[in-house]
Amino acid sequence: MCRWIAYRGETIALEHYVTAPARSLIAQSIHALESTASTHGDGFGLGWYGDHPEPGLYREVRPAWSDENLRYLCRHIRSHLFFAHVRSSTGTPITRPNCHPFACGRWLFMHNGFIGDWSRIRRRVEGLIPDELYGSRSGTTDSEAVFLAMLGAGLDRDPVGAAARTLAAITEMCREDGRSDAMRFTAAVANGRDLYAFRYAANDQPNTLYYRASGQDVVAVSEPLDEDRSGWVAVPPDHMVVARAGRPPEVVPFTVTRAMAAE
Amino acid sequence: MCRWIAYRGETIALEHYVTAPARSLIAQSIHALESTASTHGDGFGLGWYGDHPEPGLYREVRPAWSDENLRYLCRHIRSHLFFAHVRSSTGTPITRPNCHPFACGRWLFMHNGFIGDWSRIRRRVEGLIPDELYGSRSGTTDSEAVFLAMLGAGLDRDPVGAAARTLAAITEMCREDGRSDAMRFTAAVANGRDLYAFRYAANDQPNTLYYRASGQDVVAVSEPLDEDRSGWVAVPPDHMVVARAGRPPEVVPFTVTRAMAAE
Amino acid sequence: MCRWIAYRGETIALEHYVTAPARSLIAQSIHALESTASTHGDGFGLGWYGDHPEPGLYREVRPAWSDENLRYLCRHIRSHLFFAHVRSSTGTPITRPNCHPFACGRWLFMHNGFIGDWSRIRRRVEGLIPDELYGSRSGTTDSEAVFLAMLGAGLDRDPVGAAARTLAAITEMCREDGRSDAMRFTAAVANGRDLYAFRYAANDQPNTLYYRASGQDVVAVSEPLDEDRSGWVAVPPDHMVVARAGRPPEVVPFTVTRAMAAE
Amino acid sequence: MCRWIAYRGETIALEHYVTAPARSLIAQSIHALESTASTHGDGFGLGWYGDHPEPGLYREVRPAWSDENLRYLCRHIRSHLFFAHVRSSTGTPITRPNCHPFACGRWLFMHNGFIGDWSRIRRRVEGLIPDELYGSRSGTTDSEAVFLAMLGAGLDRDPVGAAARTLAAITEMCREDGRSDAMRFTAAVANGRDLYAFRYAANDQPNTLYYRASGQDVVAVSEPLDEDRSGWVAVPPDHMVVARAGRPPEVVPFTVTRAMAAE
Repeated sequence: MCRWIAYRGETIALEHYVTAPARSLIAQSIHALESTASTHGDGFGLGWYGDHPEPGLYREVRPAWSDENLRYLCRHIRSHLFFAHVRSSTGTPITRPNCHPFACGRWLFMHNGFIGDWSRIRRRVEGLIPDELYGSRSGTTDSEAVFLAMLGAGLDRDPVGAAARTLAAITEMCREDGRSDAMRFTAAVANGRDLYAFRYAANDQPNTLYYRASGQDVVAVSEPLDEDRSGWVAVPPDHMVVARAGRPPEVVPFTVTRAMAAE
Repeated sequence: MCRWIAYRGETIALEHYVTAPARSLIAQSIHALESTASTHGDGFGLGWYGDHPEPGLYREVRPAWSDENLRYLCRHIRSHLFFAHVRSSTGTPITRPNCHPFACGRWLFMHNGFIGDWSRIRRRVEGLIPDELYGSRSGTTDSEAVFLAMLGAGLDRDPVGAAARTLAAITEMCREDGRSDAMRFTAAVANGRDLYAFRYAANDQPNTLYYRASGQDVVAVSEPLDEDRSGWVAVPPDHMVVARAGRPPEVVPFTVTRAMAAE
Repeated sequence: MCRWIAYRGETIALEHYVTAPARSLIAQSIHALESTASTHGDGFGLGWYGDHPEPGLYREVRPAWSDENLRYLCRHIRSHLFFAHVRSSTGTPITRPNCHPFACGRWLFMHNGFIGDWSRIRRRVEGLIPDELYGSRSGTTDSEAVFLAMLGAGLDRDPVGAAARTLAAITEMCREDGRSDAMRFTAAVANGRDLYAFRYAANDQPNTLYYRASGQDVVAVSEPLDEDRSGWVAVPPDHMVVARAGRPPEVVPFTVTRAMAAE
Repeated sequence: MCRWIAYRGETIALEHYVTAPARSLIAQSIHALESTASTHGDGFGLGWYGDHPEPGLYREVRPAWSDENLRYLCRHIRSHLFFAHVRSSTGTPITRPNCHPFACGRWLFMHNGFIGDWSRIRRRVEGLIPDELYGSRSGTTDSEAVFLAMLGAGLDRDPVGAAARTLAAITEMCREDGRSDAMRFTAAVANGRDLYAFRYAANDQPNTLYYRASGQDVVAVSEPLDEDRSGWVAVPPDHMVVARAGRPPEVVPFTVTRAMAAE
């Protein structure tokens, strides 16, 4: 289980959400409240968009709470759309390529959850990645494989459909493997303009997802960043936050089974 | 606050105490029970004696719980006297030279506690290190400085006296700095033959120290390694465990003030 | 291109070959003579056999030349069969799981060379790894994939045949991919009793392999460890060093094409 | 011996000088031409000024050439004044706090050279650091000690004089220690507005320093970043580059002995 935040809005310094709040992501790295893991010390990462069409990335295997580079970067880097993630590994090694977010072209992706009995279904999930993207697989996580599969399923032209189709296929693989409950996907994906945050599980217990919006600014999180719960809205299961460029964020249903039927 | 274990006895694989027990040091690294810090993810270290007169050392800045090298080493390295330590930093950087144990010549040292308002009294404590040992100061912790000061105070010829004189001097420095409560020292030191474990504080709240003995075998720990509390004996404040070569361990008073008066 | 040494013989401290010689592996890490890469600073690793049936492993992403842990371990760990490797990456990330040697069960493997246009033929080579071993793939290198494919091809019962069959299959894949020259394999594999060191390339330019023997002791290396060239024997292309338990080492032909024809 | 660059001018992406040129600092990290060390793989660092009054810092113990974070940061961070440094250690440990640049308040500092027989004169040099700055000493290098001593000698109000007084004092310490040749100082210091780059040695063999200027833009380097030598000007020994805010850079004498006489 991991903790993450995704921001889309006015250009601000990353510290505003990553390090400053009372229950900032960095505070959650050493003591989270709504996670099955209290400690998220298995690496971390930042991804952000600036002037360059492709996002920036900073990932490190050490815990976020003691990384002095992270504090400097969060103070100095400003962005209108950024991701931050602290990891609690479900088994894959603690390496930089296994830390979130993942970047490919102009896309960023990060994930809280897990996918099936990974050592058993891994090869089948990797089979969803098209040949031309397989060279971009630099780590070994379930999360990176899902991201590359989503890219192969058409993330560029139909982000929501690509996610739904990919998750439908993997949910089916898990079912065939006898682990129909073993698929949790609370994730965010962005292309520098638009942000999508999903809350899905193959059973009825998806991991938590909250958001807080103000005008066109929105921040989506695994758990609230402060004790003022009034501002944070829980996203219902099988729903998603959509924040398209120039439009306020909205919460809409995210239906994986419908996508399955449609194929 | 840190967690540590020190072993002296029959030659065994390090895994016997470091990784295998229900509440092994590695388990404590992610969730300790008797520490002010629950998580000890700010680096770790092993020190052990073998055929070579000087000890071996393995120190790393990553958390112990996810270090695969540590598991291999604990399975393969066998020793009659070894230390293991997981760190929760009180402020000094997370670097290998700041991880415990510290080695100098044939001596090993590790520490749980802290010393005064370190940034203020640091230079005075470093002043206790003789010139010929100052080149051995490779980190910036209070712990390493105390160790080198103890070496300078005669650790080779009078280990208990050297510790008492050093702590008396530092306790006095803290008192002069207006922080007479700010000196906690639950530490172990060894030379390949003899093991000494101390429980001292400038006030009446020293950090915990337990031990378990069987014949000439003894293991001293910050907190018990399993739930069978019957086997673990709490060392009283101002006492120490002494395990000299070829003799069973014993618990004796450790009096810092007497040493002060004697100077 | 990487540099490595493999030793089988009397039990000795690893430092004897890894850190002490004039042109030790550590010296080669910062300045090699017979490699296309002068510097091998992209991680390193040790693998060794002791009392435990499975080998020990120490791998690190930092350069070998400045790793103080490595010096302590080489001084303290003694073994009758060990591997050491310094890496110069051909493109895959610098992570511990991508460092050599690789371990699986009682086997150790390490490699100098490269395999085809890896991002293009990777998926096909990974297809040679049987399902039951695919969960052991913890990195992304060509080398680890070849090792797991060799295990799947019967390394346990027929080490030389398993290597020849695997290399024949991969050589054919490279040929089909239009890179018939792009397969170099100077590698060592061991099971705790027997050591095999191979020198093969798909074209006529295999990377160098030398050995030095004395009675049943043998050390195989990418390049000599000292300037006394008289003691070092170059292994011819398409040959291998075989050092089976209780027998002196011998150099024999290693024929990949014959294995291809036999399939 | 280290390699570094310092830039002051129009706001640009760091990649323009750090990663892009034919003989960029990253290229020099694996193969430098004018250094006593060919390889500079003992850590690296970036320091830069942005909107915040204090500089940003990114330092890492791994070699610069394989750090994917560094490439992302150099592409995304833009600055009007930045430092970059690749390290070849002269003996102090490879830790982040020992990597250049060093930051304190609004100042940045980096250094190529060494100071005396460091383990012998270290304590005396540290004695030049005033008490109120000693808590800022987070590493153990000679370079950081000189920087803090310069701050203590009045860097804020008289940068050139503070440098000269500090170097005069240390040169004298080296002389007293019998190593009158052992002091080399090719260094840069900046406060977010002004940049100073020094070329000094206690003997007549200071390390190289070059610069290239265009209008108010200036880049100072240990060795040229490309083969077009015509654009690079060698700074003479005992001279410095001064680039004050709003003024073009100039090369002026830097006289340490005069400062000594003046004290």
